[in-house]
Amino acid sequence: MFGEILREIVDQVPGAQAGVVMGADGILVENYLREGAGIEVQSAGVEFSSILGEVRRAAGQLDLGGVKDVVVLSDRRAILLKTINDEYFVALVLSPNGNHGRARFLLRMAVPRLRAEF
Amino acid sequence: MFGEILREIVDQVPGAQAGVVMGADGILVENYLREGAGIEVQSAGVEFSSILGEVRRAAGQLDLGGVKDVVVLSDRRAILLKTINDEYFVALVLSPNGNHGRARFLLRMAVPRLRAEF
Repeated sequence: MFGEILREIVDQVPGAQAGVVMGADGILVENYLREGAGIEVQSAGVEFSSILGEVRRAAGQLDLGGVKDVVVLSDRRAILLKTINDEYFVALVLSPNGNHGRARFLLRMAVPRLRAEF
Repeated sequence: MFGEILREIVDQVPGAQAGVVMGADGILVENYLREGAGIEVQSAGVEFSSILGEVRRAAGQLDLGGVKDVVVLSDRRAILLKTINDEYFVALVLSPNGNHGRARFLLRMAVPRLRAEF
């Protein structure tokens, strides 16, 4: 079912290239890539979980509460990370000029369904 | 002038609590806090630069190009980081239900002015 949910999101967002469900420990659970995405999912997932780990550490230091979203915009990609629960998160990779608003909305809508899968 | 620009942004964004110009090395350049923000700027800045450093490292690993924005949404705060140049960035701290769209827009508009100050 993860694959189905990821595919729905990726296919509905202009500029979306890949969707991944990951463990916070860097273990890949499921992924869906649009054709020609040019993304090495395994190594991307490891880096995404590393980013989330660092953000959670910093949030703990600053007493910010639980981390819900991390968004990174770079010259070549936009990356949206959304926590599903303490152990898992979903990541979406877009082109920099993809529709980020739509991506965030669909991710938010999908979280209860993703959470129910665990 | 940094203080002036930060004040303009913070005062124009509903829910904005603090604006900071930081070195990527964690050195605070300038800050503006709205009254009652309850933010310890020095330690927050160190954690923000630590997050940016980790995101840049990961972006380098994945060949994503230069990092422009990092957004963190937690239960108690929203944090927007925007790079000014390789060495400096600006951070905005908002309440979770602050107007993030307006904050991102004003930050983007301010970057050329901030860049010109260096």
